[in-house]
Amino acid sequence: MIRRRVSVLGSTGSVGVSTLDLMDHAEAAGSAAFTVEVLTCGDNIALLAEQARRWKPALVVTADPARLEDLRAALAGSATEVAAGDQAIVEAATRPADIVMASIVGAAGLRSTWAAAGTGATLALANKESLVCCGPGLLARVRAAGSQLIPVDSEHSAIFQVFPAGNPEQVSRLVLTASGGPFRQTSLAEMAKMSPKQAVAHPNWSMGAKISVDSATMANKGLETIEAAYLFNMGAERIDVVVHPQSIIHSLVEFVDGSTLAQMGPPDMKTPIACALAWPDRLSWPAPKLDLAALGQLTFEAPDEVRFPALKLARQALMAGGTAPTVFNAANEVAAYAFLDHKLGFLNIAAVVAETLERAEKTGMISNAADGCDAALEIDAEARIIARLVVAERALAA
Amino acid sequence: MIRRRVSVLGSTGSVGVSTLDLMDHAEAAGSAAFTVEVLTCGDNIALLAEQARRWKPALVVTADPARLEDLRAALAGSATEVAAGDQAIVEAATRPADIVMASIVGAAGLRSTWAAAGTGATLALANKESLVCCGPGLLARVRAAGSQLIPVDSEHSAIFQVFPAGNPEQVSRLVLTASGGPFRQTSLAEMAKMSPKQAVAHPNWSMGAKISVDSATMANKGLETIEAAYLFNMGAERIDVVVHPQSIIHSLVEFVDGSTLAQMGPPDMKTPIACALAWPDRLSWPAPKLDLAALGQLTFEAPDEVRFPALKLARQALMAGGTAPTVFNAANEVAAYAFLDHKLGFLNIAAVVAETLERAEKTGMISNAADGCDAALEIDAEARIIARLVVAERALAA
Repeated sequence: MIRRRVSVLGSTGSVGVSTLDLMDHAEAAGSAAFTVEVLTCGDNIALLAEQARRWKPALVVTADPARLEDLRAALAGSATEVAAGDQAIVEAATRPADIVMASIVGAAGLRSTWAAAGTGATLALANKESLVCCGPGLLARVRAAGSQLIPVDSEHSAIFQVFPAGNPEQVSRLVLTASGGPFRQTSLAEMAKMSPKQAVAHPNWSMGAKISVDSATMANKGLETIEAAYLFNMGAERIDVVVHPQSIIHSLVEFVDGSTLAQMGPPDMKTPIACALAWPDRLSWPAPKLDLAALGQLTFEAPDEVRFPALKLARQALMAGGTAPTVFNAANEVAAYAFLDHKLGFLNIAAVVAETLERAEKTGMISNAADGCDAALEIDAEARIIARLVVAERALAA
Repeated sequence: MIRRRVSVLGSTGSVGVSTLDLMDHAEAAGSAAFTVEVLTCGDNIALLAEQARRWKPALVVTADPARLEDLRAALAGSATEVAAGDQAIVEAATRPADIVMASIVGAAGLRSTWAAAGTGATLALANKESLVCCGPGLLARVRAAGSQLIPVDSEHSAIFQVFPAGNPEQVSRLVLTASGGPFRQTSLAEMAKMSPKQAVAHPNWSMGAKISVDSATMANKGLETIEAAYLFNMGAERIDVVVHPQSIIHSLVEFVDGSTLAQMGPPDMKTPIACALAWPDRLSWPAPKLDLAALGQLTFEAPDEVRFPALKLARQALMAGGTAPTVFNAANEVAAYAFLDHKLGFLNIAAVVAETLERAEKTGMISNAADGCDAALEIDAEARIIARLVVAERALAA
């Protein structure tokens, strides 16, 4: 029987909902018993209250102070403590737990993730930005607290599951798989005309709009290359990407002796979540299982860095080092939202990222890496200002 | 730097030659230093002598006493001790070494493997018969000697590499991949007419004639199902076979949480050999690496138990328990050689195995498992007598 006390930061988002759903399944299967310390949300207090009635957490927090009274009313009579505001979420992240699931999307999740990293709880990390913006610092912080970071996205979870923890020198190469997104076979000319609606129609994974755009530009795989470099202490030259449209092989680790180990399974976020909740144990639940004969085939192709320049840009940012990955991430987020707001053409997303990186380089922003959360957030904010400027200039020029 | 003292039983066979070749590569790459205690061969003393000049083993042994003087002459002036005969090979297997590579093919390798298993050396096992005929006893013997058995064939090495050693209850299923052999898409009517020459033309692996016939009948996958059951302590109901013609995924382990871990790579016996020589370390050598984009696709299909009845027979033998797997193996070997000698049609190989198992059952041979090497060899010999009788009766009837 697996017993864990869990805090879920961002419990009403996609990963948060899947986490609680999985905990339900595992309890029903009799393989685990969970208690919940903290649940937090942005402003979806109806769902948060429903989750709180099920899991009876010690504390729930909404990021929106204007919703505090509604949340309090919704939980009237329960023993659950109620709070609101960003700082309350950061404080909630430090409450005692075995595992903190850091699943707040975007730079908004950075402070709470950083706070959780210092507590000694296992850090189940679904917030990519914390890793991209202050990966080395975050990993050092988790280690210093005597704990472990377990990545919660399918690619890094795959690598984590087969990576030889004590012996990284046994590894020759990491291979991230990429679905290739909705425009895998779309020509450059057609890509230029793509609408936000077309871009967010991901073939395999159900995700939020911004992440779906990242999949369409393959910026997500660029971000994941940066994450993998930090998580597994590998240089950019030892991380490859292969396009695998079926998303069955979630990533691979190649060893110096010619063996390649991979983690596979139907595309389902619950699998990496289950791994993070139970590691080094395994959570028994009625998981969808891999049936290779039913699938029939798995296909692979090299990524096209001409149509998907974000891949190359991310690699360059990683090699440039310093704060370049933070700038890459901030510029990409600004550009992706500008595209979703119809302020930018699809192909200009990468162009904005490239130009932002260039300008940041010129202004001397890209020097040493930010060694902590606050420094990273400053760089992030500066990079967003530059990226918005680049977007505005392009809009004017068009 | 990996340092190992190695004995290779069957050094002039396919696995033995690959082992020494790999040791050469690894030493040239500067990643390992090997010394050799023992090399043994059947009667290929020219190659054995050449190997002895390269590796300067303490002892070389030929199974054929008539070749002893030739071997002695070939190594005149060297410090290597020379011996001959089956008993000398068994004694050689007990000489002090870090690893004994047990790569003598067929039941002939059983006694020396059993002897090596008692020494405390890591048992790198390429001899399938020892596992099929006295698997539980062999594993207990290795454990009692404080050591470990590492399988040296691509499928079980794959499983071994991703199996959670201390936590077998985390595993829901093993999936053995099968190339499907040369007759994967051949109709039953055509299979009935196939010649030995057609049967030994394996699409992916270069192997001996008998093993190639086993691949064509898929009896090899039946034997591997039995081996996997013993090695990983899994019931037949938790071991599946999937046909994967490219032989890139070498086998898979499915976990209770929905994750499936797999070992992959170009089909090359040196990879599982490298794993066995260095485990838990990894041997660095210029290994052929997996390039999924260049491969383009991997395909999968369910095995056809009508055209390949050996699969089902092996599973039945495993479920019957006792000495049934030993009888399966012996009958299959007799039938495969009868086919290679043009004494039996291709489809009759499985028929002979089925009939031998039935007759063995009737004579009470299939009761408790043989708990040691000698008992297994007795059952093996009895089963061969019955199988030869079945073959002879079929030849008369035809």
